This record gives sequence, structure tokens and C-alpha cells, in this order.
Amino acid sequence: MNFEIDKREFIKGLGLMQSVAGRKTTLPILSHILLEWEKNSLYLTGTDLETGICEELIAKINQKGKASVSANKLYEIVKELPEETIHIQKKDNQWITLQCGKSIFNLAGLDPEEFPSLPTYQEENFSTVSARLIREMIEKTAFAASNEESRYHLNGVLFAQSKQGGKEILRMVATDGHRLSLVDRENQKISGIEEKGIIIPKKGILEIKKIIGDRDGEEEMGIYFNATHGFFKMGKSLTVIRLIDGEFPEYEQVVPKGNDKKLVMVKERMVSSLKRVSTMASERMEGVKFSLKKNSMEMSSYHQDFGDAKEEVEMVYEGPPLQVGFNARYLIEALNVIDAEEVVMELKDEGSPGILRPSSFTPGISNQFCIIMPMRL
Amino acid sequence: MNFEIDKREFIKGLGLMQSVAGRKTTLPILSHILLEWEKNSLYLTGTDLETGICEELIAKINQKGKASVSANKLYEIVKELPEETIHIQKKDNQWITLQCGKSIFNLAGLDPEEFPSLPTYQEENFSTVSARLIREMIEKTAFAASNEESRYHLNGVLFAQSKQGGKEILRMVATDGHRLSLVDRENQKISGIEEKGIIIPKKGILEIKKIIGDRDGEEEMGIYFNATHGFFKMGKSLTVIRLIDGEFPEYEQVVPKGNDKKLVMVKERMVSSLKRVSTMASERMEGVKFSLKKNSMEMSSYHQDFGDAKEEVEMVYEGPPLQVGFNARYLIEALNVIDAEEVVMELKDEGSPGILRPSSFTPGISNQFCIIMPMRL
Repeated sequence: MNFEIDKREFIKGLGLMQSVAGRKTTLPILSHILLEWEKNSLYLTGTDLETGICEELIAKINQKGKASVSANKLYEIVKELPEETIHIQKKDNQWITLQCGKSIFNLAGLDPEEFPSLPTYQEENFSTVSARLIREMIEKTAFAASNEESRYHLNGVLFAQSKQGGKEILRMVATDGHRLSLVDRENQKISGIEEKGIIIPKKGILEIKKIIGDRDGEEEMGIYFNATHGFFKMGKSLTVIRLIDGEFPEYEQVVPKGNDKKLVMVKERMVSSLKRVSTMASERMEGVKFSLKKNSMEMSSYHQDFGDAKEEVEMVYEGPPLQVGFNARYLIEALNVIDAEEVVMELKDEGSPGILRPSSFTPGISNQFCIIMPMRL
Repeated sequence: MNFEIDKREFIKGLGLMQSVAGRKTTLPILSHILLEWEKNSLYLTGTDLETGICEELIAKINQKGKASVSANKLYEIVKELPEETIHIQKKDNQWITLQCGKSIFNLAGLDPEEFPSLPTYQEENFSTVSARLIREMIEKTAFAASNEESRYHLNGVLFAQSKQGGKEILRMVATDGHRLSLVDRENQKISGIEEKGIIIPKKGILEIKKIIGDRDGEEEMGIYFNATHGFFKMGKSLTVIRLIDGEFPEYEQVVPKGNDKKLVMVKERMVSSLKRVSTMASERMEGVKFSLKKNSMEMSSYHQDFGDAKEEVEMVYEGPPLQVGFNARYLIEALNVIDAEEVVMELKDEGSPGILRPSSFTPGISNQFCIIMPMRL
């Protein structure tokens, strides 16, 4: 046998490959994964040419080798195997033979030399950052990126680096043109981020979030950017993402100034009310009307087929009466990523965007806000 | 207010309605449910004209009335409400006003008199049976019914009644022409089942299974059939199902005789092996080849794109060598409904159907078998 591997170890690695391998079916080899075994390791690689993942697994190698087989079929097979040792042998025709217990499988293979190689990198270029911090920042921004393929430059999250008060600040921003979410966190400098920032595609950045998973400890990860790619190292897995080659909008110019009407709302209560009132909003527009008066807000919605809804919520508001419409889902998604029991909403008039911030906002150190464009209702 | 109801009580009833209301969109009122309130009860009715469900809920009635509103929209709204009392008022234009806490909803309604009424029945016609027994029998048969709309008479489960050794036997049978599953259980006679049996549509019978749910106690249900409908009473819900007006095949004639080659297999081990080997079966045919020799069986499969698989399983077999092909999924589904650690498979030759039975089969009292047609591989 060329190598032996424990079923649990193998399935863990194969599971990670499923989200990139086989996404695009234009090139048959992209539905495959590359297996490379030498010394005490099996390396699995999968790619859709935008996101590539390479995973190192513990294996017992008898003779080094390479193979390329269907990512999905191999996963399906290994999933059904008993929790025992799996023996794999490369055959002369690029196929592999997989044997476990009394089961024997012959899997069709392609020439592993044809498998697209991932971009190369140098170990010393990586900056070390907290995995939890990166995951939190992704969660607070990626939802606001656009899913419309035609708006290519908005399909990602901007990573930018700046210096404030002698401290290195990492910023992530995403926008789809209707809303924007920004978060700043103090962090050591990540090498390769140019002044204007780099854009990482939403699909790829969500892959990173998945790989970080629920690791809540103080685990660290390595990040490095070259001119075309981002490299993310987490444990024994490396993810390489092709950067979006486009201009991110001048987002600092759209941050509204002069939003002098401030509301303070209890986040949980606001989210529940929005969920209720938005059941009567139209499916396409999802618009809810907010009517503000002193210390209270009435939310209302109208659906041409089903009827209408309204609800009054008490909140701190000292300004003049104001009516403004927003997309309820955008508001709920923004509220959900703000880590505070109380949220401040800053408004100007019915035609201007609103800003949401945590009420315990401390400028310059841990900054976060969401901007939402208004709707005419 | 016309009536008041607790949110939890309301959502429980509305949940049950979702599977029938709105299934067919040809008639707008079929996406609605009927609400009728009087004395201390709110009655909800939903129907797709084939399956109708009526549910009685506890409510505080101030003035009796009726309304018809969107089943799905009402469910969506109530789901988001706090766990408090919901107040409902019928308006002059057929709409209703729903108020809970600080939320007020106006829901568009249709004339409740236009809601299709469920067939009527007489309380004294119901036979009392064990709900668990009915659920078990449904689980053991309904999977084998056909989903092809063109084979209307095979789209259901046959209920038949017979007398064996002085005991009343209830039988359920389903077949899609490729396999058949039959179960007999001793039970009191259910009124309205003619000698040739009646056919209940698969969708409706699965609704009954859902309503019985996980009630594992000795709970009883009422069943009654008239010439066109089946009536099922469980707790405070009544389900009415239109029977299939067709001829069920002469299934007793297809039960193979002379299957003299008997295998005894350990069910769990056989299911695992089938799952593994079938990963290499073609998606359309799902065929696995069985090669029998003394006390062992080799299962094998071949996929033109991905490769092949084989596995040897030890089992008790005393007959001559034999090769036969079966659809792996049909075998797995049949094995899964046989309540026995050991299953007997009876075969004749490569062109004849196989029979699966529990190995602890006791004729006449608790009978069960599955028949599966062979495949040429």
C-alpha cells in the first residue's frame, strides 16, 4: 500500500474540500482533489480557481505519490466506511484502490500533474493575528457585501490598514450600495495591505470564517497578501484567495455628516418588533415606515395582498417628529452584528441615510457602524 | 374583541395547517384557513381538497364568528408574537384585526362562507384503534407507494381487513410496481373497509403519521371510512382524506412462490455494506450485483465515470452459487422497516423477485414482508 490513514482524520480533511471542489464544472479536474503523500503527511488540495484550500493530514506513508480523484465521490465513500484504517494504493492508470475492512473500491483518476497548482508564498511573509478577531470582523461586515455578479467590485470585503494614535488599526468594510458595514479593530500590521486596501471576495472570506469555525480560544492564524492573492494559514490548513481587482467605492465620502437626530433603542426589542412588522412588508421592497415622536417610534408596513401592521416602541428620542422608511431586513442584519444591548441610530431627514452604532461607542479604539440608505414609502 | 387565544395554543394549531393550506394555488381560498369561534373553542380548518384538517383549540370567545385569512401569513405573524394573549376581532369587510402587546395587524380576508366544507361524518361510526399501531404500519408500507402521478392507483396505501383464526387482521400494502411492502397486524375491525380494501393517498397518509407524531403511549385514535373518504380523529384534530378511486393491483398474485434459496443476514451490517457499495452504483439505476456462494455474499457495483466497488459479507447460505441484481436503495428502504436484527431473504433465480422478511416471522399473527423485483446488471 502507498499510504494508510485513519478514517476520522481523512473525513475531516475531505469535508473541508467539498465547498471549493466541484463548484465549477467547466474543467473536469476542478471537481477533483489532489492527493499528495510523503514523509508522514497526506496533503489534500481543492480549488475553484478563486479559492484554493490545502490541508495537511497525518498518514502513514509507505511510498510517496500523487493522485487526483473526484472530491465528492471520495467523500461519499469515506463517509460510509467503518472507523478503521484506510489503505490507498496508486495504480498504473492514474486510478487509486481504496481498501478498508472488507470493502474494496477502485476510483477513476486524472493525471495529478494537470491539477492547477496554488500560488506560492514565503513562510516568513506571514503576519500573526488572532483568529477570533478575524472571524468577528468578517461576521460584522461580509453580510453587507453585494451578491450581484455585475457589481464585481462590491462582491467582497475591503481590508485596510491605518495608524491611529500610534496604534495599528485593521479595518474591514463591505457595501452593496444600499448599506455599508464598517469595523475597526486594533491589531498588529498585516503585511501586504496597501494603503488603499485590498478586496477579498465574499465567497472566499466566508470560507475563512468556516475554517476558523468555533475556535474560541486564543488561537492565532497567519495572514499575508501579495499583489494578487491573500494567504490564510489556520492550524494545518492553508487557504489561498484571489483578490478582487477593482476599485472599492470612496466609502468615507458616503458616511453621512450632520445626522443630528439620535435615538437610543434596546437592540433585542427592536429586532423582535422589526420581525413582526416586516411580516406585512412587501416581499420585494421589505420596507417599514418609522414615525418618530418624543420618546417613541411607530413602525408600520403595508402589503397590497395581505394587509397592514403597526407597532409602537418606546425609546429615547428628544428630536422633532420625523418619518423615514428603511428596508427591515437590512436593519435587522445590521442590528444583529452590533455587539451592544443598546444601539444608537442617527438620522437627519427622510431622504438621508441612517447610521447605527453601539451606544457604548469609543472613538478610535473599537469603532463600528452600519449605514443604511432610506426608502421612499 | 371577538376572541382571545394564547399564543402557544394558536401557533400549535396553525403549524398543523401549513402542510395542507396553500399546496394548490388554483383557488385563492385554498391558501386560506377557515377560523370559526364559538363557546370555548376556536376551530381551524385547512384543505387542499384532497386532505382536510380541522383542529379544535382552546380560546376565550366573546362573540361567535367566522373568518378566512391567509394560512401562511397568519402563521408567519403569530410565530413572531411574544408569548402573550392574542386578541382577534372580525371587521365588517371580512378582514380581521389581530392585536398582541403593542402590535396591531389588519389581515385581508375572504368570505368564510366560500371556504370549501369538509365532508360530514357521524360520531358513532368511528372505530377506536391504537395510534402507535397505525403509525408503525404506515412507516412499514408508505415508502413503497409510487410517486408517479400517472400511476394514480399506485399512489397510495391499501387498507384491507380480513379474519384469520377468529381474529380481525388489518393489512396495509403499498407498491410502485418495482417493489411491494405488506404488513398485517391483529386489530379490532375498522368500519367501512370493504373486502377488496380501500386506497388512501400517500400524501394524506403521511399527514396522519405526522399528526400521530411521537405519541408513544397507548393513545387511541378514531378511524372511519365511507365510500369516498377516510376520517382520522386524533386528540382534538380531525383529518379527512379523499380515497383513491382505482383498482389496487392483484398483489397476492405477485408474491413469489418457490423461492427456495434462503439467506439469513444481520440487518445493520447488510445496510452499512449496501450504503458503501452503492456509492459506486449508477445514479439512475442504483443497481448492486449480489454473488452468492456458501455462507458468503459478494456485493459489487460499477459506475462508468467513477469506478467500481465490492465487498464480501458473511451470512448463512446453504444453496448453490447464484448471481442476482437489485436496486440498492429499495433494499435499504425495505431493510430499514423490518423490525428484526436478522432478516431472511428468499431468492429463486436471477430473473425472479426476492422476498425480505424478519427472521423471527410467525405466520398469521404478525406478518410482514417486502418484495423487490430483480435487475439485469
